[in-house]
Amino acid sequence: MLNHRIYNFSSGPAVLPVPVLEKAREEMLSYRGCGMSVMEISHRSSQFEAILESAKQGIRDLLQIPNNYQILFLQGGASLQFSMIPMNFLAGGGSADYVITGTWSEKALAEADRCGSTRIISTKKDGGYKAVPTQEELRFSPDALYVHYVSNETIHGVEFTYDLDGHGTPVICDASSNILSKAIDVEKYALIYAGAQKNIGPSGVTVVIIRDDLLETAPKNQQSILDYRNFAEHGSMPNTPNTWGIYIISLVCDWLHAQGGLASMEKRNKEKAALLYAAIDSSDGFYAGHAERQARSQMNVTFRLASEGLERKFCEEADANGLNGLKGHRSVGGVRASIYNAFPKSGVETLVDFMNDFAARNS
Amino acid sequence: MLNHRIYNFSSGPAVLPVPVLEKAREEMLSYRGCGMSVMEISHRSSQFEAILESAKQGIRDLLQIPNNYQILFLQGGASLQFSMIPMNFLAGGGSADYVITGTWSEKALAEADRCGSTRIISTKKDGGYKAVPTQEELRFSPDALYVHYVSNETIHGVEFTYDLDGHGTPVICDASSNILSKAIDVEKYALIYAGAQKNIGPSGVTVVIIRDDLLETAPKNQQSILDYRNFAEHGSMPNTPNTWGIYIISLVCDWLHAQGGLASMEKRNKEKAALLYAAIDSSDGFYAGHAERQARSQMNVTFRLASEGLERKFCEEADANGLNGLKGHRSVGGVRASIYNAFPKSGVETLVDFMNDFAARNS
Repeated sequence: MLNHRIYNFSSGPAVLPVPVLEKAREEMLSYRGCGMSVMEISHRSSQFEAILESAKQGIRDLLQIPNNYQILFLQGGASLQFSMIPMNFLAGGGSADYVITGTWSEKALAEADRCGSTRIISTKKDGGYKAVPTQEELRFSPDALYVHYVSNETIHGVEFTYDLDGHGTPVICDASSNILSKAIDVEKYALIYAGAQKNIGPSGVTVVIIRDDLLETAPKNQQSILDYRNFAEHGSMPNTPNTWGIYIISLVCDWLHAQGGLASMEKRNKEKAALLYAAIDSSDGFYAGHAERQARSQMNVTFRLASEGLERKFCEEADANGLNGLKGHRSVGGVRASIYNAFPKSGVETLVDFMNDFAARNS
Repeated sequence: MLNHRIYNFSSGPAVLPVPVLEKAREEMLSYRGCGMSVMEISHRSSQFEAILESAKQGIRDLLQIPNNYQILFLQGGASLQFSMIPMNFLAGGGSADYVITGTWSEKALAEADRCGSTRIISTKKDGGYKAVPTQEELRFSPDALYVHYVSNETIHGVEFTYDLDGHGTPVICDASSNILSKAIDVEKYALIYAGAQKNIGPSGVTVVIIRDDLLETAPKNQQSILDYRNFAEHGSMPNTPNTWGIYIISLVCDWLHAQGGLASMEKRNKEKAALLYAAIDSSDGFYAGHAERQARSQMNVTFRLASEGLERKFCEEADANGLNGLKGHRSVGGVRASIYNAFPKSGVETLVDFMNDFAARNS
C-alpha cells in the first residue's frame, strides 16, 4: 500500500520520474556513501559542487545552450522572476513589450508595471485566452528594452509552437511549464526562466538561462539577492541555494538523457497530447477543448463538459479511479490534464478510456 | 557502506535527525499511501495543506508563539530577508538601528544601506568579533524604525544569551543559526527570521515570524513576491512554496516534540557545547577559543591552533576519522564545530577524544 502509485495530472508540483524518486530514496541517508544526506552536506563541499555542476551541464547539454549563456539556479519561483526582470532591466528607464496570453503573462506584466513603463503588444484576453499570436502578428516597439512572453500558459492550456523572434529586441521567456519538453533554439532568447516544479524537479528552484550581453546591463548597487550578476559571478551561490532541489534536477537530467534527450521527449509528449485531443475531438461535443487547435498545449490539456456539475462528477470519479489532479485551475474551472515529461503514456491511455466510458454513461 | 553515517559538523546545510531522514525515505514514493511523493503533490492539495499547517503549528508550539504573530515560509534564505526587511520597513524614509557582531550582521547592514538610512548602534568589529554587547550597552536611536541584530554569528561563533529588549523599538532578529535550539521570549520581537538549513530543515526555506502590527506597516503596491503582507494574506502561498522543505520542517518539529521540546534541546545543547569548550580550556593553550567566554556560541564552537598548517592537519585527520566539516569559514580560517540540535552528543564526545589525542601527539 505504502508504495502504490497513482496517475498524477497535477499542474505543478507535478509527477517526477520513478527512477529519480528511487535514486533519491536510496541515497537519502548517505549520498554516494559519504555518510550524509544531500540535504546535510555543505553547499561548499566537493560533493555538492559536483551535483551543481552536473545539474548545470545536464541542462546545457539537453537544451544545447551556447557558452555565452549562464545557467543559474535561484529561488522564489517564476514569481520572483516577474519582479527581478523589470528590477534589473527596466527600472533604469525606457519601456518593455509584453505579450499577454493568459494568467501568467498577466502576472508578469503586473509586476513590471510597478517598476517601469510597459506596452502590451499583443493580448488574447478578449478571446478568453484560447490562442497565441503568430510571429507575423507581433510588432515590437522600436525602443523596447525587451519583449516578455510565456511560452506555455498552464491555466488556459495554450502554447507557442515556435521560438519567438525578437528581430533585435531581447526576448525574455517564462518557460516554466514546457522547458525540456522539446528542443528549442536557445539563441533566439536573451533570458529563459522556469520554476522547476513541472518538467525539471521539485518546487523551490528556478532555472535562469541568461545571455552574457543582457547580464552585463544589470545595474550596479542593487540588492545583492535580486542581482543576476551576483548569481552569475558566484556560480549560483552568493548564498545557500536549494541544495536538495538542485540534486533532484541533476537526477532528472540524467533520466532525460537516458530517455534519449529532448527529441525523444518531444515525440512522446506529442503522442500523449494527441491521444487526449483525439478523445476530445471524437466525443461529439461531450468534451469541448478550451484552446484553439493551433494553440493547443502539449503540456496542459484543458477542456470543459456541459456543466460544472458534470465536471465535478468527472473529476471525482476520475480521482476514485486513480486519476488525480484533473480539476481545472480555481480561476477558470473546467478540467485540466497536465502531462509533463515524467507523465507516462499509460496514464494518458487510462484517462482516455475513462473519458470514453464516462461520456457513454453520461450522454 | 551506502548507509553508514559520519559525524557532520557543517555549519549549514547541516545534520538532520536520522528519524526524519528515515521517514522521508519511507514516504518517498508515496506520501502516507497517497500514491505520490511529497515533491509531486499539488501545493493546493489537502495533503500539502495539512503538511504546511503541521509545520506552522509545530513551530508555534515549540516557540510558544502568541496568536498576534504570523508564521510564514518564504524562499531566498536569510539573504533575501536582509533585503526584504529594509524594502518593507525602511524604504519609505526614516532610519534603522543595526547591531554588528559579525559577518552576517555586516551583510544585513550592507543591504539596508542600499535602501535607506541606518545607524550602527554597536559594533564588535574592532575586537575581531569576539563579543556581543550587553543589553545595558545598547542605546537605541529615539526615532529608529527598528533595531536589527543577529542572535548567533555562525562564522565567528558568538551568541546572544538574552532576548534583546528594544524598549519600544521593534526588534528584528536573524535567528538562522540558533532558532529552536532553546526557548526564547517571542514577545520581545517584532520579526524573527531564519534560513532553515541549520536547526529547522533543509536549505531553500526561510521561516519568518512577524508580529501583526509590524506587518501592517508594510507598504502597498510593492513587488508582490517581496511583500510580507502578501505572504501573510495567502497563508505563505501567494506562489508555489518549497513544498519538500516545508515537509522536512514538519518532520523536524515532530522530532523536536518527541525529544521533549526546546527546554530539553537547550539542556542537551548546553551539555554538548560545555564538553567542547572544556576541551579547549583544558588544553593548556593548544586550542585557543575565538569568542570571549560570555559570548560563546552554543551552536558554533570556533577555535584556533598554533598555525594554519596545524589547523589543516587537524581538519584532515579529523575528516579521515569520520569527523567532517570542521574547517572554519573561508573568510576567517581556524576550526569550527557546528553542533546544532540534530548533532548527537556522541559526536561531540568523539571529537573531544580526537582533540585530546591530537594535542598529545602534536604538542
